[in-house]
Amino acid sequence: MELIDGKKISLEIKAEIAIEVENIKKAGGKVPHLAAILVGHDGGSETYVANKVKSCEEVGFKSSLIRFEDNVTEKELLAKVHELNNDNDIDGFIVQLPLPKQINEQAVIEAIDSSKDVDGFHPVNVGRTVIGLPSFISATPFGIIELLKRYKIEISGKHCVVLGRSNIVGRPISILLSQKGSYGDATVTVLHSRSKNLEQICASADIIIAALGQPEFVKANMVKQGAVVIDVGTTRVKSELTKSGFKLTGDVKFDEVAPKCSFITPVPGGVGPMTIVSLLRNTLLAAKKEIYK
Amino acid sequence: MELIDGKKISLEIKAEIAIEVENIKKAGGKVPHLAAILVGHDGGSETYVANKVKSCEEVGFKSSLIRFEDNVTEKELLAKVHELNNDNDIDGFIVQLPLPKQINEQAVIEAIDSSKDVDGFHPVNVGRTVIGLPSFISATPFGIIELLKRYKIEISGKHCVVLGRSNIVGRPISILLSQKGSYGDATVTVLHSRSKNLEQICASADIIIAALGQPEFVKANMVKQGAVVIDVGTTRVKSELTKSGFKLTGDVKFDEVAPKCSFITPVPGGVGPMTIVSLLRNTLLAAKKEIYK
Repeated sequence: MELIDGKKISLEIKAEIAIEVENIKKAGGKVPHLAAILVGHDGGSETYVANKVKSCEEVGFKSSLIRFEDNVTEKELLAKVHELNNDNDIDGFIVQLPLPKQINEQAVIEAIDSSKDVDGFHPVNVGRTVIGLPSFISATPFGIIELLKRYKIEISGKHCVVLGRSNIVGRPISILLSQKGSYGDATVTVLHSRSKNLEQICASADIIIAALGQPEFVKANMVKQGAVVIDVGTTRVKSELTKSGFKLTGDVKFDEVAPKCSFITPVPGGVGPMTIVSLLRNTLLAAKKEIYK
Repeated sequence: MELIDGKKISLEIKAEIAIEVENIKKAGGKVPHLAAILVGHDGGSETYVANKVKSCEEVGFKSSLIRFEDNVTEKELLAKVHELNNDNDIDGFIVQLPLPKQINEQAVIEAIDSSKDVDGFHPVNVGRTVIGLPSFISATPFGIIELLKRYKIEISGKHCVVLGRSNIVGRPISILLSQKGSYGDATVTVLHSRSKNLEQICASADIIIAALGQPEFVKANMVKQGAVVIDVGTTRVKSELTKSGFKLTGDVKFDEVAPKCSFITPVPGGVGPMTIVSLLRNTLLAAKKEIYK
């Protein structure tokens, strides 16, 4: 069994991006610039955005944090989105979700210029991903594909079971893995809360992507000997063993599943660290105009 | 075994649409208007477009056929697309594919206003379908879902195998069937040319959607007793038994598969007649502004 070290890979990728930014600077090019809009003071969102800004600094990107209070109106937020759309210095930007109830999240996402939508949530980017056109792929699926690539895990022709069908993980990763060529060509089955014979189908998989958000859902009996297991779950579960009073728990019962695997991601330190790095990669692609001319 | 009669269902739906158009007229509303752009004189395309225009007339829609010669430039075609985008009388329009080589097909598709894209090929409509937002769903998958509905075939929790991953059939139907609620909730596996154990996985399916374009690919040994089989294939195969010298052949070896099925679509007369009807349904949705306000 080999542990897939997302932390290590994410540091390698950051180092690669930093070198590329250095080269852009040396050549007199424009430094990539990511902006983030943060509404309110939710603890989780504060942490995520702070980490994104910090990661930008680490690789030499310019970053801007734009804050609004909880009582911001949809109109005010949309005005800022339009301003960022038209700001030539900003290559890509994100609006940290969730947003307060008075704001239509989907309207905000759709207001973002798809060529600056580095979160990859705009319907144009989702559609282009499905069609197989260049697109911004959202962070988690983009990160999973990169982990599989860097560990040279063969996926062509393999049976891959995706647990979960969310718009941000299960659905896009299921499409990417079964896409023609380009690190795809897997046979993909999507399982979800309404699936029958879930355990049996899961146990037939060569590769399992667990993205249900149900702590320790995948047990040893659901995993074939030698399978690859990618655990996307990160649920905060109460714990008396940590200072914070909780621990991040994956969708896989790691202790009993790991011995059966050829490769497995830990939680934390597996898929998690790859998400911010994927956002940086998308920002770099935006700055280089590699997706949209 | 029950035969799924696409011809009969398509006539029923046309009759329903005709009644709705009558009611719109009586209420003094605007008659739905579909336009089609046809480039060149390809026999297949001529027939398809002629059938679409004829179907419009049958249900009381207004229709416009716009023709270009084979040597039309991309610029000329795009100018016409923009004109139709801005023509308030036209509710929806299609550009019949394929287009001549000098024209970037994708550029033309993306130039169509997504709110008039009744073929459902624009990335915005593909993306919105994936996300689960109201969208124009392309004709063949839309027609398949309607057949399953009208025959009250239960799909929630069932294992559905989709053979083929094309952008116009395999991919969208696989997403729709596994979507939450709204005639979805199936467990979906997408099989394709690179899949291993294809026959075995196929034989485990409750529902098979065959959309490979390989005549008589699905044999009796690949079908479980009592399965539902939807045959999307329509390949012209040479035949000495028909006047035209060919016959339309599905992806399923009908004679040996049909006796094992609970439901099966014939070719022709199954999925085929549903596609034009789906285009009419999308045009009606466009006219009523039910997808985009």
